[in-house]
Amino acid sequence: MTLTSHQHAGGPDVALSLIAAELDRVRDLLVSQLTSRGGTEEVERLLKYVGGRGGKMLRPALLLLSGLAAGALTDKHIRAGAIIEMIHTATLLHDDVIDDGQIRRGIPTVNRMWGNEPAVLVGDYLLSHAFYLCAGLDREPARIIAEATTQVCEGELTQITQKHNWDLTEQQYIEIITDKSASLFAAACRVGAHLANGCPVLCDQLAAFGLSMGAAFQITDDLLDLTGDETRAGKTLGADIDNDKPTLALIHLLGHCDQARRAAIQTLVEADGRREELSAVLQAAGSLDYARDTACRHIQQALDILRQVRPAPARGALEALARHIVERTQ
Amino acid sequence: MTLTSHQHAGGPDVALSLIAAELDRVRDLLVSQLTSRGGTEEVERLLKYVGGRGGKMLRPALLLLSGLAAGALTDKHIRAGAIIEMIHTATLLHDDVIDDGQIRRGIPTVNRMWGNEPAVLVGDYLLSHAFYLCAGLDREPARIIAEATTQVCEGELTQITQKHNWDLTEQQYIEIITDKSASLFAAACRVGAHLANGCPVLCDQLAAFGLSMGAAFQITDDLLDLTGDETRAGKTLGADIDNDKPTLALIHLLGHCDQARRAAIQTLVEADGRREELSAVLQAAGSLDYARDTACRHIQQALDILRQVRPAPARGALEALARHIVERTQ
Repeated sequence: MTLTSHQHAGGPDVALSLIAAELDRVRDLLVSQLTSRGGTEEVERLLKYVGGRGGKMLRPALLLLSGLAAGALTDKHIRAGAIIEMIHTATLLHDDVIDDGQIRRGIPTVNRMWGNEPAVLVGDYLLSHAFYLCAGLDREPARIIAEATTQVCEGELTQITQKHNWDLTEQQYIEIITDKSASLFAAACRVGAHLANGCPVLCDQLAAFGLSMGAAFQITDDLLDLTGDETRAGKTLGADIDNDKPTLALIHLLGHCDQARRAAIQTLVEADGRREELSAVLQAAGSLDYARDTACRHIQQALDILRQVRPAPARGALEALARHIVERTQ
Repeated sequence: MTLTSHQHAGGPDVALSLIAAELDRVRDLLVSQLTSRGGTEEVERLLKYVGGRGGKMLRPALLLLSGLAAGALTDKHIRAGAIIEMIHTATLLHDDVIDDGQIRRGIPTVNRMWGNEPAVLVGDYLLSHAFYLCAGLDREPARIIAEATTQVCEGELTQITQKHNWDLTEQQYIEIITDKSASLFAAACRVGAHLANGCPVLCDQLAAFGLSMGAAFQITDDLLDLTGDETRAGKTLGADIDNDKPTLALIHLLGHCDQARRAAIQTLVEADGRREELSAVLQAAGSLDYARDTACRHIQQALDILRQVRPAPARGALEALARHIVERTQ
């Protein structure tokens, strides 16, 4: 599937240059908030480690660009951007505990460096601190962010109860990733637009854009977990199959083969360290292409929604970010 | 140490009868909020299990009684009570993962029943959902609750980095329990008073009362972890020494013996399953009495602060609850 273009939007770097100064402010706020008030040196070191890891800052970027698309950016956008990234980081910390991830953002995970217990507690700290910063926003953005975070947790919880369930349908998978991942993208866009006094219709459009883009992001992420390069990705890959989580390509494959082959594939998945072998099977069956196409369809949906928004540099930047999602290799 | 009395206040049951209807409403709200919107049956079952476990509801009781002491109770008190209990439950879920607790509130823990991963995620869900409910409160109570939760996480984090540190001082221990435990008691009291339009002085007094009571509660809890009866406590005991966390009685003992004995005691603590033996040593050295006296001193401080508050049935009930803290055996 090829995405249609309605304007030349440039790459993701051009997109981010529009909000470079604001993204720097979000980063500075994040680092400054991740300091212990009365804790020990060890706690200080831990928080600094988490704050210094950096990241793609995709969710704050969406929040800021949605704000620009709706009006002017304010200090509250910077705060909300830091909140969203802090919540996202908290979920990554807990994901790495759950999946026993060893590398994240190119460096050893907190669970690897300090153990699972501190990683759980630092995640809790980030989550609580994010909501402390939320109390400085108005009620509506605070509500949107907390609702999305609850949805993220519910999605993660549903996914973990579906481990080993090789009968999971594509629809159930889409519901899970919508909850656990896309909902935070949608919230970022909605909050950005809301804080810039965007009208309800525009807020809804940008949230719908974020939701479709977030689904595409997660489908691509799950694909990279099967096919990506660990050094480029900067994180441990193969976690989904090692943890027996069915993702889209595998669901497609299992849905398109007879009982005997199905059993053989399940055995292959449940044996550890067979990522490359499985990936080749998925490739041959067209299941990787199917997942890629599904991600593209979601991005196309996101772009179609975006077309309803008034043309502006920020809209072009959102489009560029969306296109990049399915083209990325990390 | 004996606590002085300035009025006959009755037992904790009499105290709670003042707010029995409101506590029931908090319980109902908790149960009704712990339902999955779109999750699987398994998620539904998990949330129901967590919601149905019940608990002493001490923090909501403090919130409600502080509200009564300051003025009239409102729907927001019910909501805030459920929020505080939800946050407390989330920390218990994560504590049980970290300490490998097997029994809590008389029934098997979530980590024992479902494993660590779901227990971490249900804790995250409760935390996020609590902050979702917070967004329906005004900014100040939302801020107080989020600030206290962050402090709780920071205290837990500090404590875990101090595992095996047998040089921990009494002052450091008090700082840790103030953060990880007393701060939520203080927040409960402050929010209760604030929501009833209590004046700033009264809010400060009730928060200070909660802080002292919370410290006494945690000292007593740590004592019961060493000396209590598991059946009565309804939870796994001995977790602190099994996880090499120095608590007050042990800090006292280690601070009052020579190097050779110190080394022998450390060996005893670091060997698993020696709770009774250690408890006898602490008893003989007067360290259990020392911890009990320290808890009583904090309760006396709480009662002294309370004396500044206008006499009322709610004040008497708060006094009864405070006294009960150091007398409890579970």
